[in-house]
Amino acid sequence: MMNYRPTERMNVVSYPIRDIVIEAKREEAKGTNMIWLNIGDPPQYGFEAFGHATEKVKTVLDNPHLKGYAFSQGDSELRENIAKIEKCTPEDVFVTVGLTEGIDFFFHSFIGFGEKILLPNPAYPLYISKTKMFEGNLVFYKHDENGQIDIRDLEKKIPGAKTIVIINPNNPLGSVYTEDNLVEVVELCAKHDVPIFYDGSYDKIIFDGELVDFRKIADEKIQYVYGSSLSKNFGYPGARIGWVTFHGDKWTEIKDAFLRLCNQRLSVNWEYQKAAATAIIDPVYSEYIEEMKKKLLLRRDALAKATKELQISYPFPKGAFYAFMKIKTNAWKYDVEFVRAAIKKGVVFVPGSGFGTNENEMYFRTTFLPEPEILKEAFERMKGVL
Amino acid sequence: MMNYRPTERMNVVSYPIRDIVIEAKREEAKGTNMIWLNIGDPPQYGFEAFGHATEKVKTVLDNPHLKGYAFSQGDSELRENIAKIEKCTPEDVFVTVGLTEGIDFFFHSFIGFGEKILLPNPAYPLYISKTKMFEGNLVFYKHDENGQIDIRDLEKKIPGAKTIVIINPNNPLGSVYTEDNLVEVVELCAKHDVPIFYDGSYDKIIFDGELVDFRKIADEKIQYVYGSSLSKNFGYPGARIGWVTFHGDKWTEIKDAFLRLCNQRLSVNWEYQKAAATAIIDPVYSEYIEEMKKKLLLRRDALAKATKELQISYPFPKGAFYAFMKIKTNAWKYDVEFVRAAIKKGVVFVPGSGFGTNENEMYFRTTFLPEPEILKEAFERMKGVL
Amino acid sequence: MMNYRPTERMNVVSYPIRDIVIEAKREEAKGTNMIWLNIGDPPQYGFEAFGHATEKVKTVLDNPHLKGYAFSQGDSELRENIAKIEKCTPEDVFVTVGLTEGIDFFFHSFIGFGEKILLPNPAYPLYISKTKMFEGNLVFYKHDENGQIDIRDLEKKIPGAKTIVIINPNNPLGSVYTEDNLVEVVELCAKHDVPIFYDGSYDKIIFDGELVDFRKIADEKIQYVYGSSLSKNFGYPGARIGWVTFHGDKWTEIKDAFLRLCNQRLSVNWEYQKAAATAIIDPVYSEYIEEMKKKLLLRRDALAKATKELQISYPFPKGAFYAFMKIKTNAWKYDVEFVRAAIKKGVVFVPGSGFGTNENEMYFRTTFLPEPEILKEAFERMKGVL
Amino acid sequence: MMNYRPTERMNVVSYPIRDIVIEAKREEAKGTNMIWLNIGDPPQYGFEAFGHATEKVKTVLDNPHLKGYAFSQGDSELRENIAKIEKCTPEDVFVTVGLTEGIDFFFHSFIGFGEKILLPNPAYPLYISKTKMFEGNLVFYKHDENGQIDIRDLEKKIPGAKTIVIINPNNPLGSVYTEDNLVEVVELCAKHDVPIFYDGSYDKIIFDGELVDFRKIADEKIQYVYGSSLSKNFGYPGARIGWVTFHGDKWTEIKDAFLRLCNQRLSVNWEYQKAAATAIIDPVYSEYIEEMKKKLLLRRDALAKATKELQISYPFPKGAFYAFMKIKTNAWKYDVEFVRAAIKKGVVFVPGSGFGTNENEMYFRTTFLPEPEILKEAFERMKGVL
Repeated sequence: MMNYRPTERMNVVSYPIRDIVIEAKREEAKGTNMIWLNIGDPPQYGFEAFGHATEKVKTVLDNPHLKGYAFSQGDSELRENIAKIEKCTPEDVFVTVGLTEGIDFFFHSFIGFGEKILLPNPAYPLYISKTKMFEGNLVFYKHDENGQIDIRDLEKKIPGAKTIVIINPNNPLGSVYTEDNLVEVVELCAKHDVPIFYDGSYDKIIFDGELVDFRKIADEKIQYVYGSSLSKNFGYPGARIGWVTFHGDKWTEIKDAFLRLCNQRLSVNWEYQKAAATAIIDPVYSEYIEEMKKKLLLRRDALAKATKELQISYPFPKGAFYAFMKIKTNAWKYDVEFVRAAIKKGVVFVPGSGFGTNENEMYFRTTFLPEPEILKEAFERMKGVL
Repeated sequence: MMNYRPTERMNVVSYPIRDIVIEAKREEAKGTNMIWLNIGDPPQYGFEAFGHATEKVKTVLDNPHLKGYAFSQGDSELRENIAKIEKCTPEDVFVTVGLTEGIDFFFHSFIGFGEKILLPNPAYPLYISKTKMFEGNLVFYKHDENGQIDIRDLEKKIPGAKTIVIINPNNPLGSVYTEDNLVEVVELCAKHDVPIFYDGSYDKIIFDGELVDFRKIADEKIQYVYGSSLSKNFGYPGARIGWVTFHGDKWTEIKDAFLRLCNQRLSVNWEYQKAAATAIIDPVYSEYIEEMKKKLLLRRDALAKATKELQISYPFPKGAFYAFMKIKTNAWKYDVEFVRAAIKKGVVFVPGSGFGTNENEMYFRTTFLPEPEILKEAFERMKGVL
Repeated sequence: MMNYRPTERMNVVSYPIRDIVIEAKREEAKGTNMIWLNIGDPPQYGFEAFGHATEKVKTVLDNPHLKGYAFSQGDSELRENIAKIEKCTPEDVFVTVGLTEGIDFFFHSFIGFGEKILLPNPAYPLYISKTKMFEGNLVFYKHDENGQIDIRDLEKKIPGAKTIVIINPNNPLGSVYTEDNLVEVVELCAKHDVPIFYDGSYDKIIFDGELVDFRKIADEKIQYVYGSSLSKNFGYPGARIGWVTFHGDKWTEIKDAFLRLCNQRLSVNWEYQKAAATAIIDPVYSEYIEEMKKKLLLRRDALAKATKELQISYPFPKGAFYAFMKIKTNAWKYDVEFVRAAIKKGVVFVPGSGFGTNENEMYFRTTFLPEPEILKEAFERMKGVL
Repeated sequence: MMNYRPTERMNVVSYPIRDIVIEAKREEAKGTNMIWLNIGDPPQYGFEAFGHATEKVKTVLDNPHLKGYAFSQGDSELRENIAKIEKCTPEDVFVTVGLTEGIDFFFHSFIGFGEKILLPNPAYPLYISKTKMFEGNLVFYKHDENGQIDIRDLEKKIPGAKTIVIINPNNPLGSVYTEDNLVEVVELCAKHDVPIFYDGSYDKIIFDGELVDFRKIADEKIQYVYGSSLSKNFGYPGARIGWVTFHGDKWTEIKDAFLRLCNQRLSVNWEYQKAAATAIIDPVYSEYIEEMKKKLLLRRDALAKATKELQISYPFPKGAFYAFMKIKTNAWKYDVEFVRAAIKKGVVFVPGSGFGTNENEMYFRTTFLPEPEILKEAFERMKGVL
């Protein structure tokens, strides 16, 4: 009796860190107290979702009309509010099941077989996975030691690219690109006529100074797509509400394709779309995000203190809630070996190779979402390992 | 200045009835009062979603834990409850964004390039679309005039099939397969070792007599996957909660593939999963569904009465809320021509070709969700057309 | 110990008639004297290849230069001579390993995923196979009972087509399209801006009247590609020399793509290209082809006589060396059943379903290449079967 | 008026060195006398094809039977003779249009979407191109400075590989793997159950010592496919005759798939197959190949002498007729820049990036087929450049 075999397509749908989690759970089962620094899930670390969003869901739950299929492109109130923020029209806005679905639809409709797509290295793993699934030609661009985009490297690789993905603040680097850095990127894209997919999932979570508004830099100069969601900026990943907006005058056919993909999966939960529609223009939000950032700042600084004497280096995080650390010792050959050693000590990280770095380059990602004392404890345990 | 072009993949992502809806909206804009019989969206026609589901969402909204990412395979309470109903283990259950996502994942993981897949004719359009997208070899099996599966036809086509999709009650036919019919299908599948994908989206909405439990017929005889959701049985399509369960001992690798697909899209709204967990075992549900069926029965009979003297024939609907009508006159060459004529009269149907019938075979689908007087009015308008 | 499994791609690379040939060989092994009417291979039936081609090969075999890689697009002398005949430039000409390779390259470079391609029904099987392999959307157009293209049917199907394949004289029908028929096809293509792939493999083998020159009908009106080879017109299938020529001003990028495909397989046998270069302009050729046609004519008429009293109908062949016969009795359910019955009697045909007709439509193809007495004997054996 | 656009598939069918050749031709048009060291085409440099092959073609040209389609898998006499040499059965032998077609069929039938395939770095470009076309996951393994396979590197990369390609003697390195090196490779493959595709195109052209027979090392230990052709070993690339043989007991289904691919392209020139059948067992061949090697040896040594004082290093060629040279100066940023500078001086090389090395690693390939004085002159011109 033989098992059914998955299709060849499944060869590129992997979940690189699953084995690590399985090993960590096995260690936990032995009685080890584990500190999980592998997931960027704010509610698990005492961060609350933006409360007004929740309240809004409650109020619309009695509206029978919203129990049906929403318009596949997204609720019109939500799209109008996004359009005001994004300085585009509601026709340019597409609401998706988290930004995750928006990324899938963008690759599905825009990245043809064998087309070159430039991804940051390191990159959020979904981009790597979607590039393979949609048969794109994956080319990584580099960052400097401050986590800024290496413009010289990008310049060499940009000719012939179909698109370039920018994640800012960057996950997993935790870096925030400077205005100068972004201006140079936009100039290169303008020169080579390459559109940008801009992932702004963390664009409210910036610690030092003002946000550089990418739209002001890019508008009228290049074609781009801006993506965001409730997941991180509003502390509500479970809501599964994201959106992308198209900027520029060349997207007509891609938007039509996007709509067909939306039609095919029918709709996104309507009540949560209503919650998002209020949340993103809620005047109280600024208090919420300041509070969140204040809390995160303490934890980032706790991380800095906790790691000061270890044999690691990393761009000091200016946004999001991750740090991407390079191990300076030669104790391991592969990043996974280090991650396993950390599990034995009761701490779970993600190996850098999950983000596209070479497995022998010895990087790992940590979140700094947990309380300062937990972070302290975690890296305390790393003494003798790092 | 050139627009970006969608990828070749988009060639097979179509939304056949969009043009019809656009024409209908244009007619409506002229001031015509339109009766929309094209969508199976219960809340739009005065059907309420199962209230206890809504209440449950309200109660869990204050649980901060549920704001994060749920386990990608689905909340464990929900999977346990489904497993009890489905007589499988929680490991066999996968919660998806509507059954729509479950169908996508099934095709993605199981239907390889060029593999034969048997679809009912007529079929819910998503199955046709996914077969093309995942490059399967689409072969239709027929129904007899009572909407039962044509076993002789199926017998001819089943050799070499990778899977067969059964939708019961059938959308768009509205037919419910008899026990004898299902037993014959299962015997054929057993003989040819072909697994079934069983779509039970409407399996609570059966008007006459008792439900034939497919699982009892199929268990131990064949390998199958059973799919369902909150959308129709619980009158809550907007919730976007569906699930599939794997039955049989050959699915180990496919379930692993499914899990990888789940991992990639992270999770399904957790609060609604909690609502589903209670709803599907709620003792009050039987009252809800009886009420819904009573209401639907009146409307089905109103449909029957309203269409009695028209030049159409169709299997009398025994479940779901659709009828699939064959036009007996020769007034039109293509089904779309008829649908356009109906729009001019203020009634919107879906042409049969959207479900895979030949466009010159002259079928159309209507829902009978609206109130009896509306159905009466709609077909009144068809006099002189049909 | 498990065998390696072929890729999913192989699911669509089939050889439908292999089983038939295996059965025929098994019958032959039992001692049955078999008449093979399944292959269009002139040298096997006493037809000689054009002798001057062979002589030319002999003379160039001593030229050491021609032992190396030829220019990948084709020898320049050959391309110049083809260009003169085709009224195009040598840059428009591509020499391929038989027209078979030219068809592969055309589909590879021109037919994108999911694009509609119109094929004649019945069609030479390679076109069906390549459409599947290159993931096109196969749509058949019909013929009338005289083997002419059914213009009304084509008109319905042509909107949105990427290309239409015309095989003239048609294999397997043996029909030759009239000037009127071709003019109507060209007008439809002009109206809908659809280019033609014209397969002229048999364009010298026309029995009655003058050849209608397709180029005169099509030039300046539509974009098209003309394909031909040494295989049939010069009785030399084993030479593996074919060519395609591009006509019209929209092919620039496709020709560039074609060249890249040619580069990838390096070159075509150079010495045979030299032979082709002389053969196609050889003044003695007209004698050769008249001789061949005279011989074929006798055999075609023998076929007509031999089949007169059988329960079959077919367009009377006006070109090529096939007839496509419809069985008028109800003795079999599938064409393959009839073909098996014929094998038992010692005659081998190809079932119509190999050419895309439905297997229950009861067609089969015969060649009439063999000597009159053999054809007589073959259909003699069919008495009681047909 | 718009040009037709090539399909997305064409994105991965490139011909990297075409631009170089175009530039070289432009330089030649200016009157520069060019030395072409970019092509491995023996007849262009005064090497004669094995004469008995040519003679054999002459004798069979009068056999009318051989003008038809040969058996698609290959002429049985040829397959029997190959089988004797390869110690397999004629059923394991497939004759192809050069080894080029055999490589295409192997990838087509064996390398599924996303499957890992290990290629040598540097590699003959066709392997890179086919990996992309057939959507494999390309992973390169390294060589040491003597051109031997870096076993430590291979060991790291082999887990999960679907196959590993070995080219021996290596093109472009010119290295010949030692028995020890091959034994280690085979042991790794046996341990990880990975089959080898062995490209023996140059396996008769080995300068120093005896040939290590790969088959003796591999038989009974691993599954493998051995490919060869008339092109290099018999100095007859224009003949377009190659073959692959399957070794081991797991290939049954792959051989069936191979046969279907053969069927689809009908046949290979029969007369040349007959020539090959005699050539490969011809007793005079050993004289021919000794003569060729003697001539090549002089040229290799002329190359060594001519390059002695230049800023380059390379594994000293032990087989084939190429050297793969590393530039030790920092005068250029990319290999293409150097190749352009060489063209200005009247010498044409292939940049290393065409073989998969990074473009900033500064490699280039030269052939040493030309006469000693030409090689001397070529590298004389490189003074001041290298």
